[in-house]
Amino acid sequence: MDFFDVVQKRRSVRKFTDQPVDSQLIEKALDAALVAPNSSNMQPWEFYWVKSTAHREPLIEACFRQNAAQSAQELIFVVARLDTWKRNQKLILNWIDTLDSPPKVLVNYYKKLIPLAYMRDPFFIKDTLAYLMTTLIGWFRPTPRVSFGTARAFETASKSTALACENLMLALVAQGLSCCPMEGFDEVRVKKVLKLNRHSHVVMGIGIGYAAEDGIYSSQFRIPRELVVKEV
Amino acid sequence: MDFFDVVQKRRSVRKFTDQPVDSQLIEKALDAALVAPNSSNMQPWEFYWVKSTAHREPLIEACFRQNAAQSAQELIFVVARLDTWKRNQKLILNWIDTLDSPPKVLVNYYKKLIPLAYMRDPFFIKDTLAYLMTTLIGWFRPTPRVSFGTARAFETASKSTALACENLMLALVAQGLSCCPMEGFDEVRVKKVLKLNRHSHVVMGIGIGYAAEDGIYSSQFRIPRELVVKEV
Repeated sequence: MDFFDVVQKRRSVRKFTDQPVDSQLIEKALDAALVAPNSSNMQPWEFYWVKSTAHREPLIEACFRQNAAQSAQELIFVVARLDTWKRNQKLILNWIDTLDSPPKVLVNYYKKLIPLAYMRDPFFIKDTLAYLMTTLIGWFRPTPRVSFGTARAFETASKSTALACENLMLALVAQGLSCCPMEGFDEVRVKKVLKLNRHSHVVMGIGIGYAAEDGIYSSQFRIPRELVVKEV
Repeated sequence: MDFFDVVQKRRSVRKFTDQPVDSQLIEKALDAALVAPNSSNMQPWEFYWVKSTAHREPLIEACFRQNAAQSAQELIFVVARLDTWKRNQKLILNWIDTLDSPPKVLVNYYKKLIPLAYMRDPFFIKDTLAYLMTTLIGWFRPTPRVSFGTARAFETASKSTALACENLMLALVAQGLSCCPMEGFDEVRVKKVLKLNRHSHVVMGIGIGYAAEDGIYSSQFRIPRELVVKEV
């Protein structure tokens, strides 16, 4: 399907028919998600594709039994993690090794700078020192600012994960499916069902299926462009 | 262009030719950004399209003069805001008024629940009370969890804004352009140039242009799918 048709066609569909979804369509959409751009290529995302009824029922319950979850033929919970960076760093360094004459700056970036940015220490000593340092240097010249604390680290990870979510949702629509991104769920319960630790954050749930006739609840409202696009 | 071709074609291009970009292409991409899904349709985003040299130079400086900024024909900084919700809430309520028989639940959602979620108080009294309440209720039944503090509020706003960024970037690629999302900038300096207050967060800068022959720096590496897609 043409790209702009996909973008226009994507709406949050909150009710699905009982037509089952071919797994290959979901797999193709997941593949599209995985090539999304992301911070330092650290790919902090995880996709939980709900297959078993044992998981499905409590997850629908955790989504307050909303139609978008209950009538969904497939459910995916997308998670941002702060604790996969070491594994990913190692995989990236291995890949860099396979390149013809890998640039030294790239090796240093992943070997030295990534740990500085991604390492979490429970007392925020690293964050405090980095904050003081960058604020000081920042008085004199442009300086990368560090994200202080766990919530800001999640902000960065969620941002990358959201880019992948958008690819995923558009890819579903491009294949004739519909979906609804959900943030209305009990995150504590979702994490319990998915056995996620405190270094994980559920970015969104996505209900997937074929749109019911009354699946779109209203017309689309957008804030007027002149209020949000500024030419400076 | 076919949707999946666009997704595969999108790569971070870090060097652009000096061919200028037709403004209409940028406008079409911005329109695609604005129809992205987002939290409660609150559209917390803003797009700063850099047109004047007076702004362009210090912004490139704030991006450490990286190629992706310096050689870009167009630059857009995408911002998440916590202080536009009242205006947006009002616009949404006005729009709801124009609907045939607007559902009462929708009116209540925007009149009563949105302020609870979006209001910021400097001493986090609201957040603390909401946290205690939802934790208590959450022991007994599924409960929406509140995001505690400013950093978590930015996490939500950045997430929605990132969904729009992905639409924007893919829409550029669909029109034969290339782009590079950048997080490597001095946010303090970028905010100063764009005159942004503390309720704003610069989610990313996007350098835009036609790809130079050596604009893509390496092949694309992805974490193997079996490590990040879990069937549960």
